[in-house]
Amino acid sequence: MAGSIFGKHFCISTWGESHGKGIGVVVDGCPAGLPLCGEDIQKYLNRRKPGQSRFTTSRAEADQVEILSGVFEGKTTGTPISLLVRNTAQRSQDYREIASYYRPGHADYTFDAKYGFRDYRGGGRSSGRETIGRTAAGAVAAKLLKELGIRLCTYTRAIGPVEIEGARFLEKEIWENDFYMPDAQAAEQAAAYLKSCMEQQDSSGGVIECVVRGLPAGLGDPCFDKLDARLAQAVMSIGAVKGFEIGDGFEAARAKGSENNDAFVCDGRTVSKETNHAGGILGGISDGSALVFRAAVKPTPSIARAQHTVNQKGENLEIRIHGRHDPVIVPRAVVVVEAMAALVLADALLEGMGARMEYLQRIWGEPR
Amino acid sequence: MAGSIFGKHFCISTWGESHGKGIGVVVDGCPAGLPLCGEDIQKYLNRRKPGQSRFTTSRAEADQVEILSGVFEGKTTGTPISLLVRNTAQRSQDYREIASYYRPGHADYTFDAKYGFRDYRGGGRSSGRETIGRTAAGAVAAKLLKELGIRLCTYTRAIGPVEIEGARFLEKEIWENDFYMPDAQAAEQAAAYLKSCMEQQDSSGGVIECVVRGLPAGLGDPCFDKLDARLAQAVMSIGAVKGFEIGDGFEAARAKGSENNDAFVCDGRTVSKETNHAGGILGGISDGSALVFRAAVKPTPSIARAQHTVNQKGENLEIRIHGRHDPVIVPRAVVVVEAMAALVLADALLEGMGARMEYLQRIWGEPR
Amino acid sequence: MAGSIFGKHFCISTWGESHGKGIGVVVDGCPAGLPLCGEDIQKYLNRRKPGQSRFTTSRAEADQVEILSGVFEGKTTGTPISLLVRNTAQRSQDYREIASYYRPGHADYTFDAKYGFRDYRGGGRSSGRETIGRTAAGAVAAKLLKELGIRLCTYTRAIGPVEIEGARFLEKEIWENDFYMPDAQAAEQAAAYLKSCMEQQDSSGGVIECVVRGLPAGLGDPCFDKLDARLAQAVMSIGAVKGFEIGDGFEAARAKGSENNDAFVCDGRTVSKETNHAGGILGGISDGSALVFRAAVKPTPSIARAQHTVNQKGENLEIRIHGRHDPVIVPRAVVVVEAMAALVLADALLEGMGARMEYLQRIWGEPR
Amino acid sequence: MAGSIFGKHFCISTWGESHGKGIGVVVDGCPAGLPLCGEDIQKYLNRRKPGQSRFTTSRAEADQVEILSGVFEGKTTGTPISLLVRNTAQRSQDYREIASYYRPGHADYTFDAKYGFRDYRGGGRSSGRETIGRTAAGAVAAKLLKELGIRLCTYTRAIGPVEIEGARFLEKEIWENDFYMPDAQAAEQAAAYLKSCMEQQDSSGGVIECVVRGLPAGLGDPCFDKLDARLAQAVMSIGAVKGFEIGDGFEAARAKGSENNDAFVCDGRTVSKETNHAGGILGGISDGSALVFRAAVKPTPSIARAQHTVNQKGENLEIRIHGRHDPVIVPRAVVVVEAMAALVLADALLEGMGARMEYLQRIWGEPR
Repeated sequence: MAGSIFGKHFCISTWGESHGKGIGVVVDGCPAGLPLCGEDIQKYLNRRKPGQSRFTTSRAEADQVEILSGVFEGKTTGTPISLLVRNTAQRSQDYREIASYYRPGHADYTFDAKYGFRDYRGGGRSSGRETIGRTAAGAVAAKLLKELGIRLCTYTRAIGPVEIEGARFLEKEIWENDFYMPDAQAAEQAAAYLKSCMEQQDSSGGVIECVVRGLPAGLGDPCFDKLDARLAQAVMSIGAVKGFEIGDGFEAARAKGSENNDAFVCDGRTVSKETNHAGGILGGISDGSALVFRAAVKPTPSIARAQHTVNQKGENLEIRIHGRHDPVIVPRAVVVVEAMAALVLADALLEGMGARMEYLQRIWGEPR
Repeated sequence: MAGSIFGKHFCISTWGESHGKGIGVVVDGCPAGLPLCGEDIQKYLNRRKPGQSRFTTSRAEADQVEILSGVFEGKTTGTPISLLVRNTAQRSQDYREIASYYRPGHADYTFDAKYGFRDYRGGGRSSGRETIGRTAAGAVAAKLLKELGIRLCTYTRAIGPVEIEGARFLEKEIWENDFYMPDAQAAEQAAAYLKSCMEQQDSSGGVIECVVRGLPAGLGDPCFDKLDARLAQAVMSIGAVKGFEIGDGFEAARAKGSENNDAFVCDGRTVSKETNHAGGILGGISDGSALVFRAAVKPTPSIARAQHTVNQKGENLEIRIHGRHDPVIVPRAVVVVEAMAALVLADALLEGMGARMEYLQRIWGEPR
Repeated sequence: MAGSIFGKHFCISTWGESHGKGIGVVVDGCPAGLPLCGEDIQKYLNRRKPGQSRFTTSRAEADQVEILSGVFEGKTTGTPISLLVRNTAQRSQDYREIASYYRPGHADYTFDAKYGFRDYRGGGRSSGRETIGRTAAGAVAAKLLKELGIRLCTYTRAIGPVEIEGARFLEKEIWENDFYMPDAQAAEQAAAYLKSCMEQQDSSGGVIECVVRGLPAGLGDPCFDKLDARLAQAVMSIGAVKGFEIGDGFEAARAKGSENNDAFVCDGRTVSKETNHAGGILGGISDGSALVFRAAVKPTPSIARAQHTVNQKGENLEIRIHGRHDPVIVPRAVVVVEAMAALVLADALLEGMGARMEYLQRIWGEPR
Repeated sequence: MAGSIFGKHFCISTWGESHGKGIGVVVDGCPAGLPLCGEDIQKYLNRRKPGQSRFTTSRAEADQVEILSGVFEGKTTGTPISLLVRNTAQRSQDYREIASYYRPGHADYTFDAKYGFRDYRGGGRSSGRETIGRTAAGAVAAKLLKELGIRLCTYTRAIGPVEIEGARFLEKEIWENDFYMPDAQAAEQAAAYLKSCMEQQDSSGGVIECVVRGLPAGLGDPCFDKLDARLAQAVMSIGAVKGFEIGDGFEAARAKGSENNDAFVCDGRTVSKETNHAGGILGGISDGSALVFRAAVKPTPSIARAQHTVNQKGENLEIRIHGRHDPVIVPRAVVVVEAMAALVLADALLEGMGARMEYLQRIWGEPR
């Protein structure tokens, strides 16, 4: 139970359905004294808002966040931060049809199997709108990281078969195209590919990559809470994500030790690594180099093409899912991946505060 | 903190270092009345024991488990089950050399970064011996699953570039070769490949696959504790695992919706899926078809080839790691992956007990 | 961190300050299929609402609850239930004075010590309004208990030196007087006592008692999560509670074993106890008899009498706290105690679902 | 489930039954660099060991602790600390009789109700020997507190009706008598009282008090994890404890606000309180004055007097419990109460590390 709660120290509790009254999150465990305003959160939410290009759904969703608690005079107070986004754009359309059958690739069938019934309106809790809560909370975590000099850079690495090319990587290009791709040429190819998918009433998947710089060495735990393990749960818990890799990932499985090991080197002052096949984590703990991971996103399951399925009575039928659906989820999911990474890292920073007696001495050590 | 504790309901707490007095685990939350004996656990531990072929380390490790608590008259009592494996094979070799420098691909550097110092003997807590605790606990979870008709099948899918072929898949072959591969021909090729790696004083990675059958539909949570997300954390928390996929995984990112969606079908009685690209999970909840996931394992970092690294003083040096190291970790990690999957599934079964008021009525409902 | 989250299975996350935008709670882990409407929650909130008698503050607080998620077509869906109460009655009064000094008996000083600063408006997070979140969540838990035939009866046992008398106990009288006392005569005496306190610009403490009937035997855990231990945390976490007793409590410390032991007896069919000194719990687990516990509540710290204190500059000063304060907190805290008990019991019921393999067989056991 | 795990940051997992192979605990989350040796733990265990006077059981229990992991070169490494005490004194006596009936005041009946059967040998998991695990872990926590200048002083405040008197309080006297009473005269009276109890084949309860000095202000959480609430759970989770009070406790319920409030005062440099009715905690957070709490302990339920009970068949019978039982548990429970307090305080210290952004800056703030 309690599967909508995430984090051990920087702990969030999300709630809300697609067509309920709203979506929100409570952040518990954020340190006091972090400068925070609505705009810090809104700019994250805006990155996942639909209707920004012809490749995202044309549904208009305002997604205005309201900070209900935990901030006083522009700073966090250390008490729970409650964030609320009211649902506004729910069409009063008839969902009775969806109510009766199971959409392939969706959670309709499994919700019924678990709970005995479901809120069938627009996917209910398993809708993409659920990510609003995590994204809002992730924005708070990202603000905390920023104060400590930790920077996240997240982008689309591939749309279907179209992948960015290392040689053309340009960070600022991420903000210049519809796909958050750091490669203008790939973005053009992706547009063409998606156009053909849409013409075929089909959809596409893709890959998201995240790079974190400025992370101190020594974050994460050696056992179950390895930093990459926690990132894996965080990222795989985003609907539609089907795979996770740190550093070389599945490529490492084909490599030899001599190729995959990263040599340490010291310039006389700082220890660093000559390569970064590990993706910034050794034994579950950050090593001070850039943290690099990827998420595989499946194609949007809602397609207008004919599909076979069954209804609750067990009758076989053919359906076509109409409506305003994203032909690809990837661009809107980029910020969600970044938010989840920020949450894991904020948690790890708080966890690490208790790693050494020396740290406790620094905070509590004055004689009394 | 508390990163050596895993699971919310079926909860384990592992401990132990490579060269300490032993390795162990406490299982808390196992239901009362499960038949359990030492042999149930020992046979799991034996599958990860070294020295079984020329492709695993020749170190002799007895790894005999002792049940210290929680079992009475052959059944679990509902109270914590403490399992202990004494370390016996620690050579009194001099680890002072390892103590001073950071082995590439190992956690030496990151332990120092986190804790300020480390138990350098044989890797300490980040040694492969840490997996004894999880494997022992996983054996208990697997016994619980078996009682409920849930069966796990785990095997080596690839060693370096050598992959099993679907057409040749034979489950009983898993137990016939040195690599737990369900394909005798691939196993032969793997042997040849590893032989060449060893001649080059090098090592290899690989891929492990797990298939779970008999799982009820409706297990897992729709949000952060999605069944695949929990599996991802569980499996990525095994040292050397660098990637995780459910169902088609990264392949799904390249697919179209019409290819990736699994059609539902009903034979008049039972709902099933025509294909299983999803790997048995929709929206984080099991759908009643086979659960299928994969883990990418990096090559053994301990190689005899010359490598560059630094010591604690920041001096650059060239090292060669001698000793009895596995040229490939994959075969011994197969059972560890299975154990982690069993732990996640046992946890999900317990969590699911509270999913419906109807279930509570069934257990607590008699009038009082 | 995360100290505003309570419960392991039936898990709540509360938020909100006295003078922020509102107060609320997210309930995660409530089983699907529980009939629930706003009125179920509102009637609990109304019991703690001020302005109901001359012995409670005359502040008008609407405290209307809104269910934001987790309920569909009159039943819980199994997903998080978000409950919101907007703050409406905050006077725009000047809190600058309170901001500068530390009120005796309040958390002003300790908030500054922990967080470095505080939301000083009306006590912020440590205000009595914080209990709205727990009470709302407790109402959901109480509904769940009611469905399973478990009934809570909570009342004022003492106001200052005025205590109810066993011989006069009348349950329906609880709803007939200003103090929720099950003894009309004691209620009259309490009124007279409080009147004299108010004339002296002083305040009173008291004792709350809760009796739970219909609880199955076998709830609770033998070790740290003993049912009485969890109740103790739950009840002691209510502001102003300074003591907790189960059964005979401190009286048991003065008794002998022969007096304190409860003999078991069987009427041929059912095992019961001849007495109930234990208060319904043996070894941390419910024994099927009535669960009985008490909470000691300190007098309202806000009094108009002159008091000595210091301000943030360390200057000694004399203050008088004016405003609309309850001369006694006890009557309004009765429902809060009941809510916390309901939360603990709902949690224990869910926990107990996994106590036996036999229960798992009953839910998951059909062959697949 | 998982009720044998306690603590969120300094997290312990205990295991073991009275007549199993041993008792133990795993401590996860202890910071690295704490000097720790077996003697630190043994001296705590020795304080709860029986056979030290004519008022404790004459059973000989060696209770030698072995540190199995987590300590290297005399210091904690930050990884789990596993502690083991082998059971040695189990008589091979026949427990079949106890197996069949339910001892009044014991957990026999409730274990059967929860789990369906029980390990009946000497109480199994609900035996007093269970406290060995907590005491051992508490010794580690107490060592951590000591390093930070925090001192615990725990003693017997009352045995049956015999209470210590404030005017005669002498701390060093605690170590001079059989009861850990800081008042020689009261100890003599207690001896006489217990002698009479024993002559009547009866037993006595009592009260334990704990005072903590040197605690920084600002520890604890304002909501559910109030420091006193966590202490209440910790202490009430000790078998036989039936009540908990902080500061004036139940006395506060009878007091007026003007009597119960503690005035703040400043000597020009330090803020302190003129009185300490609050017991060192305001709003759930430590205020820098001495923390004072009490636990009510019920009389030993095992008495040789005739008692009525039933057996598993539902037959009524009369029993007499023979064997070596403590006529009073209190003296041996003193160290257990201290251990639980130490665990809660260590947890709170770790939690408090993340209370302010300023603290994070101090640990992680250097530019990278």
